[in-house]
Amino acid sequence: MNLGSRSYDIVVERGVLKRAGTLLNLNRKCLIVTGAMVPRAYSECIAGQCREHLIVTVEPGEQSKSFPIFERLCRAMLSHDFHRGDCVIAVGGGVIGDLAGFAAASYMRGIDFYNLPTTVLSQVDSSIGGKVAINLDGVKNIVGAFWQPKKVLIDPDTLKTLPQRQISNGLAEAVKMACTSDAALFEFMETHDLMEHIDEIITGSLKIKKAVVEQDETEKGLRKLLNFGHTIGHGIESTGALLHGECVALGMLPMCSDDVRARLIPVLEKAGLPTSADFDLDAVWEAMRHDKKAGAGSMDIVTVEEIGQGRIERVTTEQLKARFDAAYREV
Amino acid sequence: MNLGSRSYDIVVERGVLKRAGTLLNLNRKCLIVTGAMVPRAYSECIAGQCREHLIVTVEPGEQSKSFPIFERLCRAMLSHDFHRGDCVIAVGGGVIGDLAGFAAASYMRGIDFYNLPTTVLSQVDSSIGGKVAINLDGVKNIVGAFWQPKKVLIDPDTLKTLPQRQISNGLAEAVKMACTSDAALFEFMETHDLMEHIDEIITGSLKIKKAVVEQDETEKGLRKLLNFGHTIGHGIESTGALLHGECVALGMLPMCSDDVRARLIPVLEKAGLPTSADFDLDAVWEAMRHDKKAGAGSMDIVTVEEIGQGRIERVTTEQLKARFDAAYREV
Repeated sequence: MNLGSRSYDIVVERGVLKRAGTLLNLNRKCLIVTGAMVPRAYSECIAGQCREHLIVTVEPGEQSKSFPIFERLCRAMLSHDFHRGDCVIAVGGGVIGDLAGFAAASYMRGIDFYNLPTTVLSQVDSSIGGKVAINLDGVKNIVGAFWQPKKVLIDPDTLKTLPQRQISNGLAEAVKMACTSDAALFEFMETHDLMEHIDEIITGSLKIKKAVVEQDETEKGLRKLLNFGHTIGHGIESTGALLHGECVALGMLPMCSDDVRARLIPVLEKAGLPTSADFDLDAVWEAMRHDKKAGAGSMDIVTVEEIGQGRIERVTTEQLKARFDAAYREV
Repeated sequence: MNLGSRSYDIVVERGVLKRAGTLLNLNRKCLIVTGAMVPRAYSECIAGQCREHLIVTVEPGEQSKSFPIFERLCRAMLSHDFHRGDCVIAVGGGVIGDLAGFAAASYMRGIDFYNLPTTVLSQVDSSIGGKVAINLDGVKNIVGAFWQPKKVLIDPDTLKTLPQRQISNGLAEAVKMACTSDAALFEFMETHDLMEHIDEIITGSLKIKKAVVEQDETEKGLRKLLNFGHTIGHGIESTGALLHGECVALGMLPMCSDDVRARLIPVLEKAGLPTSADFDLDAVWEAMRHDKKAGAGSMDIVTVEEIGQGRIERVTTEQLKARFDAAYREV
């Protein structure tokens, strides 16, 4: 990832967790943040390579991206006398990365952060790009920072322990990126078994994300492309039962041309993702109004008229509502 | 302040609060954060110039730089549907600026921040430079960000309502900067009435701070000069009764040569600042160990052997202890 003085390496390699000590500077105090659902072996493997470590395990799910848990991480570092030269390491999925990353961004106004994603979702998407945050009052990512990791280690071997639903959840973001930015990757996903070729899909997705972030680190323009499916997706997500990627899958449907949608649906199905709306349309619409991406009266959305050609469009609330109603009645 | 894309103007002008609307973009939602001790007229003067405003008033003192109050500011913005294009305005002293600035830095990963300091301390020092933070478990500024304001408006007329002790409190930082970086300003302070010439002292101090921050925005080296008097000062401050500037005044004494100290003490006395230690030496020493500026075993301190010639020195804990003991027995 080339971002001037904030540049960093992303290493994709089976078994890389075992040699983290040779790639990261672990000769200092390391706060390892992990999740209760993440196999303990991964954080212990990293801990064994640190000079001095402290493991904090948080409950799975978005509810851990909260003020109390954020404060708890800061307090853990403070009570163990962490200083500017120490570091935070995330071992887990996107929730862990967002939470640990925001603690790293804020403690002493920013210390080193390493991200070691262990889910498809975080490996293809959220582990790189530097967006870190917590939630407040049910609104996702409303308090956070742009804070780039010093290095990202991606070990596809960790996906072996992941439940199928979590794999599908992550594939949604890969489909999303191919759809807006890489027709060849989209075709590859149409014609190949997804899990057999997960390494190629991770690498292909990361290349798209890297190119976008390099051109627009702080989401002033182009980076908004990555929000394809997220405007409505976050609204669906806030109502409860579905995972992030499942919501993104559903959220992409209203933003496509008919031709794109006809190709998108089979790929989503192959990835094990939902393609029809089984949620309370009014509740989702209301939640969207509170979402940070919804401006007053009008907002930017990402649409795809042709595979690989996503674009940012400013629409009124009424125009979005029309897309919303049309898509979910149709599918 | 020249910091590339993060550059901004600092306007020093009597009465400038009254024409804030012509200098700032207030044609949006504005969260005005002010303190209970700050004359209400100032925040109301600004509110009257905003298209849409919300005033949050916090209690005076460091205890407001807390997680709960930080969360409260974020929630206030969220519940009023603040978006990326909206802004936060601090009207008050350093506590208000630090707290409001961190909320601006974090809400939606950063929105515009205007700082309108109303105390000598914040006008000469803390309002510019972009260091924002809250405290945790009695440790100052341990959680925060580097977040530059979009503009700083300094109205020396606001100092008329300030108690003498608060004026002295702020003058300590001006003395500090002159002492490390500007022999001419130091001489000016030796030979002139300080309050009669407060405009010149503010401007002179800001010029020093501006030059230092421009060269080292994120405190990797030179900016540490601004910590002159703060290593021990923060330790004194954490024990209670004294104001920040009073602690900085005391904290400078062990860091000077005898010649410098002989010239420093009369200026501090003239500014109404303490020059002898009336605190529990052991408690202060213990508090310092927990201070973020104290590294393990050794730390960087700022010393002044000759007026205007501050330098950063790496010392062991023992060396610092020797300075500490010598100065406070002596004075």
